[in-house]
Amino acid sequence: MTAVTHEDVLAAAARIGGHVLRTPVLEVSPGLWFKLEQLQHSGSFKVRGAFNRILAAGDVPAAGVIAASGGNHGLAVAFAARAVGVRAEIFVPEVTSPVKVAGLRALGAHITQTGSIYSEAAEAAAKRAAETGALQVHAYDQPEVVAGQGTTGLELMEQTGGVDTVLVAVGGGGFAAGVTVGTSAGGSGPRIVAVEPERIPTLHAAREAGKPVPVQVGGVAADALGASVIGGLAFEILSGPRVESVLVSDEAIVAARRTLWERHRVAAEHAGAAAYAALLSDVYRPEPGERVAVVICGSNTDPATLTSD
Amino acid sequence: MTAVTHEDVLAAAARIGGHVLRTPVLEVSPGLWFKLEQLQHSGSFKVRGAFNRILAAGDVPAAGVIAASGGNHGLAVAFAARAVGVRAEIFVPEVTSPVKVAGLRALGAHITQTGSIYSEAAEAAAKRAAETGALQVHAYDQPEVVAGQGTTGLELMEQTGGVDTVLVAVGGGGFAAGVTVGTSAGGSGPRIVAVEPERIPTLHAAREAGKPVPVQVGGVAADALGASVIGGLAFEILSGPRVESVLVSDEAIVAARRTLWERHRVAAEHAGAAAYAALLSDVYRPEPGERVAVVICGSNTDPATLTSD
Repeated sequence: MTAVTHEDVLAAAARIGGHVLRTPVLEVSPGLWFKLEQLQHSGSFKVRGAFNRILAAGDVPAAGVIAASGGNHGLAVAFAARAVGVRAEIFVPEVTSPVKVAGLRALGAHITQTGSIYSEAAEAAAKRAAETGALQVHAYDQPEVVAGQGTTGLELMEQTGGVDTVLVAVGGGGFAAGVTVGTSAGGSGPRIVAVEPERIPTLHAAREAGKPVPVQVGGVAADALGASVIGGLAFEILSGPRVESVLVSDEAIVAARRTLWERHRVAAEHAGAAAYAALLSDVYRPEPGERVAVVICGSNTDPATLTSD
Repeated sequence: MTAVTHEDVLAAAARIGGHVLRTPVLEVSPGLWFKLEQLQHSGSFKVRGAFNRILAAGDVPAAGVIAASGGNHGLAVAFAARAVGVRAEIFVPEVTSPVKVAGLRALGAHITQTGSIYSEAAEAAAKRAAETGALQVHAYDQPEVVAGQGTTGLELMEQTGGVDTVLVAVGGGGFAAGVTVGTSAGGSGPRIVAVEPERIPTLHAAREAGKPVPVQVGGVAADALGASVIGGLAFEILSGPRVESVLVSDEAIVAARRTLWERHRVAAEHAGAAAYAALLSDVYRPEPGERVAVVICGSNTDPATLTSD
């Protein structure tokens, strides 16, 4: 029994159902599905966890919700807060691009730019939350967040009629962990191929060390998979026997993202294409007849770069 | 009884089912669906008609298939011909961009660039077909083509559980006509809102004149909705009582395309956004509780222009 159960994911689905999109699946060839989660509100799966964390809290404090992120998590928390009518305070590092800050502001969030790197912004957010009593929404290491992300897995099993294998990207691991729990039922479920960029191997490093350890963060997917350490909840879940951990090169991610656009007209960010990269570059090779789902998880990207990067 | 019946669409669906994608629907808000046909093979619905025409012909002549189009239809015919293993000859005007010619060539098509405008290329293709005996695949005005496009309508009714209204773009009218027939069953079906750019009003002009008449072609969607006259089959079908004909401005099309990307992460070409433009600009206003499907029909576009044009 892990800290997040299948029942938690079912409860999350009931809680957030009216707020998030049931993103479609596309069977691109017989037995191969894309779960098109990049079409989700705010452009990534992150709203699922954000809504679940906020709605599970019941009464949100007057100070509202608070999060640290200049990326998908920040957008998701701002989106969810606006939808349920609570204040959102988002801390971002000073280096965050004006475009991203404007995007957060357009969702009504109050922005604080502080610190030269992410961890400094995160520390400032935690300090602020302690002062104001605002509800913290973590990017990946909270049970409600993991359970919320897991609803993606529930849906894809229903929509495909069940698969043998799910390929899913790993950053802090909350999404992959949620999908692992969400796709299981009665203790069994598909094989989970947890795909990390070679240049951000948080799960690999943790598996080798036997515990979460910090890694260097770099490469094309760092803007969305750039956690420097796997979450504790995620590590526990992703250490299970159903989970296979693989690495993909930046070149494979770039090629997968370009193929997603050119062949399938799916617009994804680099992180969103990482899971597909494992399949396209033969890092993961399905058996004949194996039913495989690939989760495309984000699209917060400049579309001008879909054919050039 | 029109020249294309619901049974023809059912037959087309059985014929092409293994070759085309069952594109997903996305319920973006309660009662509003997008049919994501821009995810179809070759980037538009056109492959449905192309496959149906080719497969319905049985034995394709040794000369293969032939079509005139530098756009979506050409790509679709080349794609379908390659898939079934027959030769494809595509005639395009001399002005066709090298990028489009390269795209056709990458699909294995034999390209002839001739004539200064589309109609000259089309005449040359017809002359060539008479010489070689190649199977002509028309862009819209053949029963098999209309029936093939109609499978989009069949699918969306199944996937949504039925809708009251379908918004669909009109160029030569083959797609809108097919969707009209495909969504009907036993003589009844949803309201069809046939959406044309103000600058290419082929259906409007034909309705006024009581017969297909040529119109001036211009504006942002001319590359894909640029037929100068509505097809005879389409005019017959789109003159029915279920069909409402509306016009949208180029500004509305541009705004709809941008909203599709920014709010929904759907990458569409201008023509692909035309149907949504009618809804977004209030040219068509659904009643409260009305169930509406919008067909997003093409994505053959430079993604760099999704946020700028």
